[in-house]
Amino acid sequence: MSDLPATEVGPSRYGAGDERGAFNEATPEVAVRAARLVRSGRVFDLSHVIDRSIPAFPGRTFKQVLSTTAHQLNRRRPDAGRRGWGENDVNWIVEQVEATQQMGTHVDALNHLQVGNQVYNGWTIDEIVEEHGTNRLGVDTLPQLVTRGVLVDVAKFKGVRHLAAGEVIEPGCVEEILDCHGVRVRPGDVLLFHTGWGGLWSDADAYLSGEPGPGMAMVEWLVESRVSLVGCDTWSFGPVPAENPARPFEVPQTLNVRHGIVVAENLYLGELADAAVTDFMFVLSHARLRGATGAWVAPLAIV
Amino acid sequence: MSDLPATEVGPSRYGAGDERGAFNEATPEVAVRAARLVRSGRVFDLSHVIDRSIPAFPGRTFKQVLSTTAHQLNRRRPDAGRRGWGENDVNWIVEQVEATQQMGTHVDALNHLQVGNQVYNGWTIDEIVEEHGTNRLGVDTLPQLVTRGVLVDVAKFKGVRHLAAGEVIEPGCVEEILDCHGVRVRPGDVLLFHTGWGGLWSDADAYLSGEPGPGMAMVEWLVESRVSLVGCDTWSFGPVPAENPARPFEVPQTLNVRHGIVVAENLYLGELADAAVTDFMFVLSHARLRGATGAWVAPLAIV
Amino acid sequence: MSDLPATEVGPSRYGAGDERGAFNEATPEVAVRAARLVRSGRVFDLSHVIDRSIPAFPGRTFKQVLSTTAHQLNRRRPDAGRRGWGENDVNWIVEQVEATQQMGTHVDALNHLQVGNQVYNGWTIDEIVEEHGTNRLGVDTLPQLVTRGVLVDVAKFKGVRHLAAGEVIEPGCVEEILDCHGVRVRPGDVLLFHTGWGGLWSDADAYLSGEPGPGMAMVEWLVESRVSLVGCDTWSFGPVPAENPARPFEVPQTLNVRHGIVVAENLYLGELADAAVTDFMFVLSHARLRGATGAWVAPLAIV
Amino acid sequence: MSDLPATEVGPSRYGAGDERGAFNEATPEVAVRAARLVRSGRVFDLSHVIDRSIPAFPGRTFKQVLSTTAHQLNRRRPDAGRRGWGENDVNWIVEQVEATQQMGTHVDALNHLQVGNQVYNGWTIDEIVEEHGTNRLGVDTLPQLVTRGVLVDVAKFKGVRHLAAGEVIEPGCVEEILDCHGVRVRPGDVLLFHTGWGGLWSDADAYLSGEPGPGMAMVEWLVESRVSLVGCDTWSFGPVPAENPARPFEVPQTLNVRHGIVVAENLYLGELADAAVTDFMFVLSHARLRGATGAWVAPLAIV
Repeated sequence: MSDLPATEVGPSRYGAGDERGAFNEATPEVAVRAARLVRSGRVFDLSHVIDRSIPAFPGRTFKQVLSTTAHQLNRRRPDAGRRGWGENDVNWIVEQVEATQQMGTHVDALNHLQVGNQVYNGWTIDEIVEEHGTNRLGVDTLPQLVTRGVLVDVAKFKGVRHLAAGEVIEPGCVEEILDCHGVRVRPGDVLLFHTGWGGLWSDADAYLSGEPGPGMAMVEWLVESRVSLVGCDTWSFGPVPAENPARPFEVPQTLNVRHGIVVAENLYLGELADAAVTDFMFVLSHARLRGATGAWVAPLAIV
Repeated sequence: MSDLPATEVGPSRYGAGDERGAFNEATPEVAVRAARLVRSGRVFDLSHVIDRSIPAFPGRTFKQVLSTTAHQLNRRRPDAGRRGWGENDVNWIVEQVEATQQMGTHVDALNHLQVGNQVYNGWTIDEIVEEHGTNRLGVDTLPQLVTRGVLVDVAKFKGVRHLAAGEVIEPGCVEEILDCHGVRVRPGDVLLFHTGWGGLWSDADAYLSGEPGPGMAMVEWLVESRVSLVGCDTWSFGPVPAENPARPFEVPQTLNVRHGIVVAENLYLGELADAAVTDFMFVLSHARLRGATGAWVAPLAIV
Repeated sequence: MSDLPATEVGPSRYGAGDERGAFNEATPEVAVRAARLVRSGRVFDLSHVIDRSIPAFPGRTFKQVLSTTAHQLNRRRPDAGRRGWGENDVNWIVEQVEATQQMGTHVDALNHLQVGNQVYNGWTIDEIVEEHGTNRLGVDTLPQLVTRGVLVDVAKFKGVRHLAAGEVIEPGCVEEILDCHGVRVRPGDVLLFHTGWGGLWSDADAYLSGEPGPGMAMVEWLVESRVSLVGCDTWSFGPVPAENPARPFEVPQTLNVRHGIVVAENLYLGELADAAVTDFMFVLSHARLRGATGAWVAPLAIV
Repeated sequence: MSDLPATEVGPSRYGAGDERGAFNEATPEVAVRAARLVRSGRVFDLSHVIDRSIPAFPGRTFKQVLSTTAHQLNRRRPDAGRRGWGENDVNWIVEQVEATQQMGTHVDALNHLQVGNQVYNGWTIDEIVEEHGTNRLGVDTLPQLVTRGVLVDVAKFKGVRHLAAGEVIEPGCVEEILDCHGVRVRPGDVLLFHTGWGGLWSDADAYLSGEPGPGMAMVEWLVESRVSLVGCDTWSFGPVPAENPARPFEVPQTLNVRHGIVVAENLYLGELADAAVTDFMFVLSHARLRGATGAWVAPLAIV
């Protein structure tokens, strides 16, 4: 897919200065067609709840602390009520969160992964790093996404509860599943792979012990299909251990850095798979933290 | 609207044990009708970018720190490449965020505001408080929202750049605007009020000096209309200073605690108002931080 | 020791408005005498290293993230050198820490513990709570401490590696140990109890499973002795389970709230005990975080 | 002082693998002599209180949030009292802090500053960086310091409230001051420079606008004098703007990286200077955060 040496990242198909990557594929026409898929109005929330106990990549943590001190402060205001501020006794509580966006159900930004020192479109880390994040390709530069989603239920196809760690999802299998459903992938589509691995979510050690996922042949297939986003019910995207153990995380790295396709991780796809939904309106909106490497999200499948 | 004494919160219209509030109004039928409003496929992002410089309620802060140390660590792995991990030289960067969810464009959860010691449906703070958040009514219990949005452009109607701080939006005015557009509010609708105040966003002192907003008469109107959510281009919802200065923040307090209607704050409505959009498919999805008092969001208006 | 009902905290022996507690006992004269104990110049560091793996009270965590981004930023300055800022290629790195001061080797402040709603000298939580901490009795109001330290090696006296969880240290035992060493406790002294429990430090589960410590009779003894501070090689101070299981943490609560005697926790006393040191110059200095409930410290024993 | 090219850091005088730097100079003998300086028992706290309003280097912040939720949790325990846990109604409060150690009165560790990519003793950032901090030269590897402190009151000598920003303290001036007091600097001494700049502490903009300090000639003098630590009542150490504007922060960089002499910053020296103290017992103890680049401290001068 690239004749450039391993550490050279060439210009993107979306232009040398592009910061939107494959989200460019999700045109207004794509959004219009997606909205037409809404028939019953059922909304599937593809996210897990986030708290300190969820599975996390080594070194990543989530901490949340609640503060109710406004209750004391409001009762000490000059115009305090008996039980709060004012005659209406208003009070509030506030949490403080300390965490990386690389936790729970989240979408990666185009700055998260690198080949050596280079990110998408060839910028180097040295060029884009700031104290708070990056000055390019942060999640704030990623558009909001309204498009068609397609569920590829590999676990069901293979008749297993979940694929095995390191098991590779190949294009042949995916094509067979899509044919079976009469779905033809179009530019701008989001492809979500149900491997069943997400069923291990509540057992962090098992969940993090590895993962199945699309392999390098699927990368080529996805790029040619011009999808706008991919996602999986796993903590990364692509098999772990990798197809070639000497090339770790090459699937998301290649998608993200060389092709501008970001991935959504830790998706909750069980309910969608149980409902045997194949294609749907897909909406992914994210808070725009300047320069962040991702965003906690709740992607929606609307049918 | 309530004959109960100021500090007694009665059971909700949605049931005594309900934790979804007015989001109950957003039924599947409502979602189906909303999707039919998508004609051009244009997606309006109603959020502001979040960084440490944005306007914030006193004491609330946003801090983000980037870490690129994986670059060093990956090059020291036993199977490291020359510039990263593996032959594919993979690397990554990660930010760490420290902030409350009560920052930037966010949706409040039903646990955020109280009358004295009571939240929605009469639970007391003493009952629901945990170290990390609350065990009821956290933002994780709030469903994802797909419904119709209605923009009420009060600034345009009044012919001003922005309403004044403390200026009250009254039902008569809102009805006139809606009549003008031929829009009739239905159960489950989201009402967004464009006051123009959001144009002050980049001047934090001015933005935080007060705000215009719907008054207590509008609260009654909104409750009777059975809206699912309300929002404004201001840092809270409702006039500041309040209509009755002895009753601060009574508008969002009454909506949230007594009627289960949460508010979306710090909305970016300028572009939507400029486009003269009146009604649209509205999608609000939020990451589900367990027990948190809100969530940073990017609400979408799709037309 | 107190005839007041359980929830009433009377005025302190140091005055009704006092915020220094038993640190008042550490007079300049006491410091002068302490300095005379320095003969060999050996300095014992009584602290453990703090990192995310250390034993912690449920819900408390320590997180530290390193940022090296100044390296990139410095090389992009207009007057950058080839490898840093300026011709001298200066660079720096900075960590970000997220933690409570109630971790690792730390000293509690007089605001940390309460009887019901009351802290030392009878102030209520409602009076002193602010968003950031307390407006009275924060660790910033605690003086720096230079006095004599006395090591009471209970483990050695009992001939055990460590006392058992819940084992109570009684005055008779302490007096016998002191007699044996010819040490008579004087006002302003710091008493450090070596139980051997600190030897479990590297096994967090074992360390946190309980602890031995001075019981309620010792509390009375310590108050009468007018010590300035007490400490132990355990995560709290006093036996866990408590002597009277219906009265948890009554030892530190009584010392702190009723008598103004704060405690130093998680002390590393192994080396001092091995050296058979009995009395020494004791210096405890702490960063003064406004309103905080304690401070990470490295108390020193200088002989 | 070094014939090596600007970016090569040679082995330290304390040995190629040393991680203690000039703290090696503070021998037990030095501590014994220091203790003999204690005559009145007065303890000077050389630290400022830390809160979110203190002067900070660009991008560095201090945030502290108080949580009182244990009050609610304790009253909900099965064995709760009426107002807390147990018959003794015990309760507690806890803060959560988010900050770098590079704030307020702090001591730098030997890993904080670099020449290009190299720290003290020639290790490179690439070798020592971990996610949490560094695996060498973190503040946890710095011993606790008990030695003699010498106050050099340059402001008094020059008859000014404070020296000017960028004003250079030269060896001749320092020698004259020391001669005047009959103090001869000995190996292991700590030299604290009172410039009066600390009087601007409460005006963050003024305080951060620059600073006076020892220049490069003083660096050589300090190294030859074999001091164990230096400090100033300024936010860094050394004149800002620098003597040679093309060589920013060269004074602390040279001391730290090439000579293993760390600096204490933001010292509060006003009271010590007012008391006209010239030499004293100096104790600097710091919490040992693994791999951190410094530590908040309260250095003590005991006379």
